[in-house]
Amino acid sequence: MKELRVLLVDADAERAALVSAGLRAAGYDVVALAPDAADLTRRVRESGAEVIVCDLDDPGRDALESMRALNRDEPRPVVLFAERGEPEQIEAALEAGVAAYVVEGLAPTRVRPVIEVAIRRFRAHHAMRLELEQTRATLAARAVIDRAKARLMERGRLSEEEAYRRLRRTAMDQGRRMVDVAQAILDK
Amino acid sequence: MKELRVLLVDADAERAALVSAGLRAAGYDVVALAPDAADLTRRVRESGAEVIVCDLDDPGRDALESMRALNRDEPRPVVLFAERGEPEQIEAALEAGVAAYVVEGLAPTRVRPVIEVAIRRFRAHHAMRLELEQTRATLAARAVIDRAKARLMERGRLSEEEAYRRLRRTAMDQGRRMVDVAQAILDK
Repeated sequence: MKELRVLLVDADAERAALVSAGLRAAGYDVVALAPDAADLTRRVRESGAEVIVCDLDDPGRDALESMRALNRDEPRPVVLFAERGEPEQIEAALEAGVAAYVVEGLAPTRVRPVIEVAIRRFRAHHAMRLELEQTRATLAARAVIDRAKARLMERGRLSEEEAYRRLRRTAMDQGRRMVDVAQAILDK
Repeated sequence: MKELRVLLVDADAERAALVSAGLRAAGYDVVALAPDAADLTRRVRESGAEVIVCDLDDPGRDALESMRALNRDEPRPVVLFAERGEPEQIEAALEAGVAAYVVEGLAPTRVRPVIEVAIRRFRAHHAMRLELEQTRATLAARAVIDRAKARLMERGRLSEEEAYRRLRRTAMDQGRRMVDVAQAILDK
């Protein structure tokens, strides 16, 4: 089995060494170590990390902002081990895309199942988010295409079928997407 | 703060008593206790439980099937404490709607943050699922309405605006949804 590449974030060098050893023993490849959660997106791009494990006593606003940016620009499963777990903190972390929020220390030997859960949750969530985005985009495109079709039907006395075919043919001839052709018709 | 109502599932009576005491100490109201995960939907309806905490050594197919039915018919956050956590098991549990999958025993005193995370994750996931379902329904309705509108435009030599207004007026006059009026036009 291929070893997953992990970025480990830990402010405490001693603890970082322990956790890192635990991750290696559990079959992970710790490819980068960071003292804080700043610039996660850049660090992930540079290290090629596939999973992020964060040991943070008290995940603050900057850390969450960095996770939110990562989730937007370079989505990866993030496992967050925190000492504290106030409901508002948990909510903010999940909202920032954290796949596993684990309160209170965890023995490094038990980190593997947590990461496994996080990866699978991340994938399921990511798939659902993509589906929602695609469905929304389809809905928006459909609205534009239908309005353009209606415009062609009104102006050119075309049937729906003819209007649709004209749109599709124009798109194919010009190598454009139907929604862009439709938008151009509405913008005229 | 109102005490959350918990359904506890645990095959081991001794452990169940311990966990139950831990949950009560953490501020939860254990309203029902079950020895296995069968009939979760019915148990939830009868007990009015808001959260389900399951202690299962090895969550099997029947337990997951029951969780899947709960997730479909009476969605609630489910926290699953399991002794084993093979990737396939984790994946099947998440797919069945489990909000938190915790591998290897957890001290009852530390159960609260896990439940808090599970509840928040459940809500976020549930909201996204509802949004996806609504977007899909809107897309499907829009397709039907647009086809009916086009049919009216073709047959009645109406403009798009007129066709839309006729659909809407018929729906209002008959107290029906536009999509149903549209479907009736297409079915003619």
